[in-house]
Amino acid sequence: MYVSDCISVNERGHLTIGSYDTVELAKQFGTPAYIYDENEIRKNLREFKKSIDDNYGGNGLVVYASKAFCCKEMCRICEQEGTGIDVVSGGELYTALSVGFPTDKIVFHGNNKTCDELEMAVQNDVGRVIVDNVFELETLNEIAAKHGKTVGIMLRIKPGIDAHTHDFVKTGQIDSKFGFALETGEAMEGIKKALEMPHIKLKGLHCHIGSQIFDLDPFELAATVMLDLFKEVKEQTGVELEELNLGGGFGIKYLKSDRPRPYGDYMRKVSDVVNRYSAELGLKTPFILIEPGRSVVGAAGLTLYTVGAVKKIPDVRTYVSIDGGMGDNPRYALYQSHYELICANKASEKREATVTVAGKCCESGDLIQEWTHIQPVAPGDIIAVLSTGAYNYSMASNYNRIPRLPVIMVKDGKARVVVKRETYEQITECDV
Amino acid sequence: MYVSDCISVNERGHLTIGSYDTVELAKQFGTPAYIYDENEIRKNLREFKKSIDDNYGGNGLVVYASKAFCCKEMCRICEQEGTGIDVVSGGELYTALSVGFPTDKIVFHGNNKTCDELEMAVQNDVGRVIVDNVFELETLNEIAAKHGKTVGIMLRIKPGIDAHTHDFVKTGQIDSKFGFALETGEAMEGIKKALEMPHIKLKGLHCHIGSQIFDLDPFELAATVMLDLFKEVKEQTGVELEELNLGGGFGIKYLKSDRPRPYGDYMRKVSDVVNRYSAELGLKTPFILIEPGRSVVGAAGLTLYTVGAVKKIPDVRTYVSIDGGMGDNPRYALYQSHYELICANKASEKREATVTVAGKCCESGDLIQEWTHIQPVAPGDIIAVLSTGAYNYSMASNYNRIPRLPVIMVKDGKARVVVKRETYEQITECDV
Repeated sequence: MYVSDCISVNERGHLTIGSYDTVELAKQFGTPAYIYDENEIRKNLREFKKSIDDNYGGNGLVVYASKAFCCKEMCRICEQEGTGIDVVSGGELYTALSVGFPTDKIVFHGNNKTCDELEMAVQNDVGRVIVDNVFELETLNEIAAKHGKTVGIMLRIKPGIDAHTHDFVKTGQIDSKFGFALETGEAMEGIKKALEMPHIKLKGLHCHIGSQIFDLDPFELAATVMLDLFKEVKEQTGVELEELNLGGGFGIKYLKSDRPRPYGDYMRKVSDVVNRYSAELGLKTPFILIEPGRSVVGAAGLTLYTVGAVKKIPDVRTYVSIDGGMGDNPRYALYQSHYELICANKASEKREATVTVAGKCCESGDLIQEWTHIQPVAPGDIIAVLSTGAYNYSMASNYNRIPRLPVIMVKDGKARVVVKRETYEQITECDV
Repeated sequence: MYVSDCISVNERGHLTIGSYDTVELAKQFGTPAYIYDENEIRKNLREFKKSIDDNYGGNGLVVYASKAFCCKEMCRICEQEGTGIDVVSGGELYTALSVGFPTDKIVFHGNNKTCDELEMAVQNDVGRVIVDNVFELETLNEIAAKHGKTVGIMLRIKPGIDAHTHDFVKTGQIDSKFGFALETGEAMEGIKKALEMPHIKLKGLHCHIGSQIFDLDPFELAATVMLDLFKEVKEQTGVELEELNLGGGFGIKYLKSDRPRPYGDYMRKVSDVVNRYSAELGLKTPFILIEPGRSVVGAAGLTLYTVGAVKKIPDVRTYVSIDGGMGDNPRYALYQSHYELICANKASEKREATVTVAGKCCESGDLIQEWTHIQPVAPGDIIAVLSTGAYNYSMASNYNRIPRLPVIMVKDGKARVVVKRETYEQITECDV
């Protein structure tokens, strides 16, 4: 019925997440707040892991893309589930390190890592740095030399595939800030350079073709293109690269009407291509890395808000103001992203009102959803926005100096705070 | 030559702000960093104050809209310049209170203030709460009653004027989350209600017709509409309201080609209307409040970045990666806002390169400006993005867990930190 199995309605007519009554959660922890079902996160991680076992005989690694939702507890969960973590900054790396995450399973991404960040990666023996460009390759080699180390890397390749998603989330095509272009020969040049560098160990190649992709064809095509490159590298240099990182981008369910493919399907179909085509090209099947982020946490989370003013403007529309907004969920302002909204305390009633849900920021563009269907709401009601587990907490700001929300996790009938609500003291902590 | 008088080029060919060499600032404080010229901020505040003196005989108050840029030091500057401060949340109010800002000069805005925020306003005797809707009016009256106080308020009225700006920043028309509609009778109803409430002192009315407005006509029209309402209130209730808050929205120069009206022009023309039309209607000229935000700080600030990788994609475009991005300036991602970019260490050279400047966030949409003209740049160069003084620091996030930037103020040859750079420890401070 809902966007995720962990969402339901109980006998009181209240929305639940992981069987926990969201109205009780709102009372207990206050609103606005992010709520996650920990079991749903673990289930998703296990599903990805199982597919590596089933389709590649375990010869691979699931790497959670922590930019979707990064905090210490999420790193602990990944560590417990035996997955890797993909970090894209010193801050995310710091978070993973602070819980003792095994550094050989950390993958460090980014189109413009700073020298400090590369230094941090080298000093902490990060397993794989995904090198984005020649400038970075040279800088990394120098830093590694300074520390007398050899750094494991993969090169990020633009396979030239356009996954037909939102303009902002196309990344595989040549017109991208990310990676080495294939068509121009830049990729092969980078590979040869990396192979010659004394402090660089080129483990393999990476590609990422976009985000929120529902179609399997682009993934299959990307795998083919990448394996062709493996073959070419072998022919031109004699080196058979060991690892292929296929990135992430698996679509999730934001709306009831969304029909993402089960991750198992994706993994099976792509692995068929990888296994078969490797053999055809006379290559060993490489060690496979995949980087799910949104698909691990997105539908496992929701946000709870309390309704304030309800403003009915005759013949225009009804604005429902909530106690959060673009500060905690900027995705509608940024991408006009769609979400399902439910009145948590009236969840069994019909969603027969059509309203615009407005945040409390002093900006007309601070809307969470326009012309959306929800139960008729009044001040004091609790609104749940579903599928906010990815890119909400991680993109949150203090716009208007509004404190950022706490993150609550529920698991087996227990709820706990994993990120505390910010205080006014913390917001002004850097002010002199 | 530049977007603001405080920007120039020195004999070394380096960009300066407030006569301070920005290349030296980058060395001294690191990049990325926000830099403000304090004298420019003070000059702008004084210009607004002077226009109240010149045009209304001092019978008014300049209220700085701190959502544009709020930190303790900015509150101190406003206090020293004798202006008021407009806050839109408990966090902004907390900031003003923490430097001992005179509470009678604080104006509290927002379409959905929480009970805690209203309580905070009442307990601290905030001078004017701008009440947005009837629900808030009733809540505020109850809270004031509980504390045995009378709260000074103004009602936010939608004057039904569309200032023809970007969709996101139209706020005066009836289809807005803000305020009481005029046409529907909601405004008059709210006014009558407020006048009857025992713990409410209705000081006057507020309107705000939009943002980044270059044209004077909508401001004049808004003043007229509001005075007509003053007259109607007097006729229907016998009460002559004392204060008229005309809001903000004065356009600033982001690009060389922008031609904002001098604030003096705006104030003179609008005051002509206010003074003349009040007299015509048989009203005393009300006490005037204006709420400049962007126009005080926008062109007084810039952001300094260091160039990392420069990626030339033949026949496509050149991506220049910088060490900041949408985390510190989300305005391009949000509104496709235009900015002028200058290579700070090559400022006297011709801006003959056409590039796309990309941030370091792991997101294709993290661009600061596309197809922009700048001096040919290489890794290590310093890029200044001009006119970032408003809605950059205040909208900043920790997306990708990248620390937020420090704010540096220069004044009379001295530079000082007014907001410290965030640390990794602070980013993970709320993590359990």
